[in-house]
Amino acid sequence: MTAAPPSARATVRRDDRGRYERELIEAILDEALVCHVGIVQDDGWPLVLPTLHVRDGDALYLHGSPASRLLRTAKKGVPVCVTVMLLDGLVMARSAFHHSINYRSVVVFGTVQPVTDGAEKARVLDLLVEHVQAGRGAECRPPTEEELRKTLVLRLPLDEASAKMREGGPIDDPDDLDLPFPAGVIPVRSVRDELVRY
Amino acid sequence: MTAAPPSARATVRRDDRGRYERELIEAILDEALVCHVGIVQDDGWPLVLPTLHVRDGDALYLHGSPASRLLRTAKKGVPVCVTVMLLDGLVMARSAFHHSINYRSVVVFGTVQPVTDGAEKARVLDLLVEHVQAGRGAECRPPTEEELRKTLVLRLPLDEASAKMREGGPIDDPDDLDLPFPAGVIPVRSVRDELVRY
Repeated sequence: MTAAPPSARATVRRDDRGRYERELIEAILDEALVCHVGIVQDDGWPLVLPTLHVRDGDALYLHGSPASRLLRTAKKGVPVCVTVMLLDGLVMARSAFHHSINYRSVVVFGTVQPVTDGAEKARVLDLLVEHVQAGRGAECRPPTEEELRKTLVLRLPLDEASAKMREGGPIDDPDDLDLPFPAGVIPVRSVRDELVRY
Repeated sequence: MTAAPPSARATVRRDDRGRYERELIEAILDEALVCHVGIVQDDGWPLVLPTLHVRDGDALYLHGSPASRLLRTAKKGVPVCVTVMLLDGLVMARSAFHHSINYRSVVVFGTVQPVTDGAEKARVLDLLVEHVQAGRGAECRPPTEEELRKTLVLRLPLDEASAKMREGGPIDDPDDLDLPFPAGVIPVRSVRDELVRY
């Protein structure tokens, strides 16, 4: 199943790796814990900071302190680019040139809107805790009204989202196939250990 | 040991988490395989894309196809922001509000210069392969002159770099300490499995 790019901006330049199926985009966003948010600062410089996110329906939610430089700027309605990347493997080719990585990434362009309704904010923050650790929402004290006021929640629609991925083994030059080097993929995984109690 | 911020731009806004020691910055860049590069595009929108990097001495090196939108724009000498993040743990607090993550991140601001000398380019590409998998530089065919021509290598000085980190357990409100919820840190690690041969 294929899907078309939602906009010129959200079109992946390397055609062979661009994907636009909503299911794939959502799966990548849901598997990733951290995204990288890019904005243009007032002085014209880009700023990229990592932050937690959660997807719900057709939107991505970011949160943080109202004092955060990143979120304060994003809140003004400036363009943002949110990027998520899952590293799946290291591709070992027979030539240095064809070394690569297997990955799944998503890039979302848009502008954010602050979530102001208290109940909706509480719902999104619960989703965020659940995204970090499933089941945890029921294992902690929910936010008070003051804590909700001290948290900025921003909503970014997924209208302009694209995915990009590489999978499979190395693509070696035919002349290199007989070289005596081991070739293939080193899988990379993120592992969670047991809770260390404090 | 502490160090001062190299510039106003590279000053971490949350004082308690900003760090400027060169050793720490280098260790984070060296441990991370992937960075996120942010630029401002011609239309004023930010673009953030993940890519491989390697640090050598006082610079960070990026590489890719000369056709890459990101690298082509960066090559013009526009401001870039390169961000690296290592996720170390999920901090489970007794309240939803105090949930957090343990991480180490680095943000570098600057402008890039293309590496044009063939021998220097070959040296950096070898470092890149070694950064992805130690020892691999000797286990593959080195690049030909044509392959070197088809690879863009960009150098970003580390003059304006800062690190940020959080470590340790949750910081709960005193009133929450008796709540019957398990609290602490779930360590997160990136694991490499054995090479799957192709």
